[in-house]
Amino acid sequence: MKIDLNADLGEGFGAYRMGEDEALMQIISSANVACGFHAGDPLIMDSTVRLAMAGGIDLGAHVGFPDLLGFGRRKMQIETRELATYVIYQLGALAGFAAAIGHRMTHMSFHGALGNMAAADADLADPLIAAVAAFDSRLIISSSTSRAIEAAAERHGLRVATTFLADRAYDKSGLLVPRQLPDSVIKDPLKVRDRVRQLLDEGTVTCYTGERIKIDACSILLHGDTAGSVELARGIRREIEQGGGEIVPVSHLIP
Amino acid sequence: MKIDLNADLGEGFGAYRMGEDEALMQIISSANVACGFHAGDPLIMDSTVRLAMAGGIDLGAHVGFPDLLGFGRRKMQIETRELATYVIYQLGALAGFAAAIGHRMTHMSFHGALGNMAAADADLADPLIAAVAAFDSRLIISSSTSRAIEAAAERHGLRVATTFLADRAYDKSGLLVPRQLPDSVIKDPLKVRDRVRQLLDEGTVTCYTGERIKIDACSILLHGDTAGSVELARGIRREIEQGGGEIVPVSHLIP
Amino acid sequence: MKIDLNADLGEGFGAYRMGEDEALMQIISSANVACGFHAGDPLIMDSTVRLAMAGGIDLGAHVGFPDLLGFGRRKMQIETRELATYVIYQLGALAGFAAAIGHRMTHMSFHGALGNMAAADADLADPLIAAVAAFDSRLIISSSTSRAIEAAAERHGLRVATTFLADRAYDKSGLLVPRQLPDSVIKDPLKVRDRVRQLLDEGTVTCYTGERIKIDACSILLHGDTAGSVELARGIRREIEQGGGEIVPVSHLIP
Amino acid sequence: MKIDLNADLGEGFGAYRMGEDEALMQIISSANVACGFHAGDPLIMDSTVRLAMAGGIDLGAHVGFPDLLGFGRRKMQIETRELATYVIYQLGALAGFAAAIGHRMTHMSFHGALGNMAAADADLADPLIAAVAAFDSRLIISSSTSRAIEAAAERHGLRVATTFLADRAYDKSGLLVPRQLPDSVIKDPLKVRDRVRQLLDEGTVTCYTGERIKIDACSILLHGDTAGSVELARGIRREIEQGGGEIVPVSHLIP
Repeated sequence: MKIDLNADLGEGFGAYRMGEDEALMQIISSANVACGFHAGDPLIMDSTVRLAMAGGIDLGAHVGFPDLLGFGRRKMQIETRELATYVIYQLGALAGFAAAIGHRMTHMSFHGALGNMAAADADLADPLIAAVAAFDSRLIISSSTSRAIEAAAERHGLRVATTFLADRAYDKSGLLVPRQLPDSVIKDPLKVRDRVRQLLDEGTVTCYTGERIKIDACSILLHGDTAGSVELARGIRREIEQGGGEIVPVSHLIP
Repeated sequence: MKIDLNADLGEGFGAYRMGEDEALMQIISSANVACGFHAGDPLIMDSTVRLAMAGGIDLGAHVGFPDLLGFGRRKMQIETRELATYVIYQLGALAGFAAAIGHRMTHMSFHGALGNMAAADADLADPLIAAVAAFDSRLIISSSTSRAIEAAAERHGLRVATTFLADRAYDKSGLLVPRQLPDSVIKDPLKVRDRVRQLLDEGTVTCYTGERIKIDACSILLHGDTAGSVELARGIRREIEQGGGEIVPVSHLIP
Repeated sequence: MKIDLNADLGEGFGAYRMGEDEALMQIISSANVACGFHAGDPLIMDSTVRLAMAGGIDLGAHVGFPDLLGFGRRKMQIETRELATYVIYQLGALAGFAAAIGHRMTHMSFHGALGNMAAADADLADPLIAAVAAFDSRLIISSSTSRAIEAAAERHGLRVATTFLADRAYDKSGLLVPRQLPDSVIKDPLKVRDRVRQLLDEGTVTCYTGERIKIDACSILLHGDTAGSVELARGIRREIEQGGGEIVPVSHLIP
Repeated sequence: MKIDLNADLGEGFGAYRMGEDEALMQIISSANVACGFHAGDPLIMDSTVRLAMAGGIDLGAHVGFPDLLGFGRRKMQIETRELATYVIYQLGALAGFAAAIGHRMTHMSFHGALGNMAAADADLADPLIAAVAAFDSRLIISSSTSRAIEAAAERHGLRVATTFLADRAYDKSGLLVPRQLPDSVIKDPLKVRDRVRQLLDEGTVTCYTGERIKIDACSILLHGDTAGSVELARGIRREIEQGGGEIVPVSHLIP
């Protein structure tokens, strides 16, 4: 059993720090790096790309809205043709740092409100995925379960790596339950580890409403926003390894 | 006699327009495109890159300070290691748009205050040129005459295309006379065309202080900020062509 | 018959220019000045405030979304409590320039997408108008017809000056017909002047669907985005004056 | 013996946190609040102003360069006339939040590179202080010892509150020794407390080169960037109170 552990990194900006990148780097096999729109700046991007290369970690672009003040978490109504150019800009910028050290990007994912909007709207997902494909057709789309994303990726010849959010409740259709609802975020470390175990053993998740549904995930998303979350990430890694699983960068799992 | 005509394009931002890009596109053979730091945004970058490709015009990145409010014309004291990452970010972003349509960047230049600082300071020019070389060693550095830039380019294995600013006064060492001084900007179209003629015929420019000095330029920089400047640009193009000269993209001139 | 002519001014940013402020200043009696979020910067705000004071023109703050790239025309989903602080920030900034020259602000209006959203949503209008009232209870709200705005203003003890958009089609409820629809923007100068005449004579506008509805406007909004629009603005001013009307700053009209 | 303890607060931005504002609020008597240029945003400004009012803490504006990416610590070469408008913009914005809750600003200070440049350059200090005076002539300028600032304040009729930086080495002229030099920042808590004691007892500081010079300070600047610095701030407060000193907001100390 092989699986990828990935995390969002490089979310600081100038003098501001966000998340425990150093600790997470020891745990994960793939990184999604902010590209300067919702978070991140050239200096942090450069450092993170170098660390990823040194650590043998897959490098991905974490693409978001141009809203540093809102950390990319606020919906913006932007024409899709324009939004597609924001995607290319961010992909290009991160790829630049990879190129400068002889590394390369393996994947990309959409951040925050942009991610939620694209996952739920086929008309938005299509031109954004088309932009990714135009930029580099070898890139893997890293996404939580979304028909919109999957269909668009298939249409444009891109591969999708489905990520499992171990600490987030799912509905029956496999979409994430909104954060505002009670118990939508699972905080008990034991419960989170149980969910990881169930995914590994059965390929299922127990929904918010009690049913078990299939989740075809090859990757688990970890967080580093608080000290507790890093400890939880370590616990998940141990859970996998003790069960005989192997942690492998996402590009090794997607043919 | 072959020479390149180049201009700074894509300097708008969102709803703001700057310069007469459409008119200049009909005149020039190389474009320097703003990359979102001192000017430019993803949508304008995308359009400009497409127009450049369609027009057979060489595509370059015009890299500046992160100061949209000051249009990159104000000196900023930024650590060179950090500044080098700004260069890579901007190169990567523009290269992304080129990649997305199967085009490629041929050259880059430094804008405004960053350009002036780098041209005058070998300690600054070196790490910035090193960053360009790390990103893509085939890129040509487009620059007005500067020992600092030329030495750095040679050290890092990059080619330099020297540009001639036909409407700017030069001092004896080949550097531009500061804009603040009287007659540092030459406004008489006939004088400007005479200077172009002299460059083509003799490879010289008559300095601010009267001496003729050698200028080894393969490119002439045109402006599009005012209606008059576009007319002047057309006049320069005619001057060259009537004299039997040929306008050729910069990458065709640098072996 | 007295009426106010107002316009949105100071919408440049750094080296970027927008609109014909100088020409409009000769025509209008009230100005709505951008405050640095969707457009405008400190230098332009300062100049515009000085010109307004010198010209005896009422000074208002034009408050928008923090989206310079989108010129404040794109919807953003921002928590209302946070959005209310953006309103205060912008009001304070512009009031600062007024204070520094011994002038004072008389009114404010919401720009672009923020204006459209607030006009159509009572739950959004209320906290924003409450923020204006907390900042300065003497400020007049300048707005196109909107029950949401009017009700909120009444609740928080603020006066409303209704503006008439002479070149925009209205629906039966007095709201503006969306720009996307055909003929929603009236471009024929004669038709626009007829609409102004009808407003002055009857206090009515003929709707998109043909009915005449009452519009209780004390102000007409003029544009300066194109050369033609300034000419149109001049035409409207002449139309009013030739009919015996008097152009008066908005604060003189609202008791 | 009465003295003011002040600190820079509200230096977060959006999702980013900076410094231990809550802890410092319990220790200080005056706050310098970032205004959205080098740090700070409307929501944080609003919260900080409310907390200052609730805590009986004097409210000041901490005015900096428009360089969030550099946290206002990088020199920028901006025309003084334009820079003066940045000062007014920031003062106005913070004053807006004070006005909205019936509070008022008592003082202002310059942040980072802008502070260093103004303190060392009379030609820069003068127009900036003139802008402060034009905005509100009752504002106190909070500054480390600087002849440039003091002379400008006197010329424009403003009062100056000199702050003592207990953990920074001084040169013979009373200016701060640059951070780059060894031992320019004093990290030993006992030494810092000794320096505070000496200031209170003798009104002197022992310079970098060993001499004792007079410092006519009515305020001590505390930091909250690290857990250790808050502990140090608490120690300084205790040092003062145990010596019979009284902590008083800066506006109570300046006649």
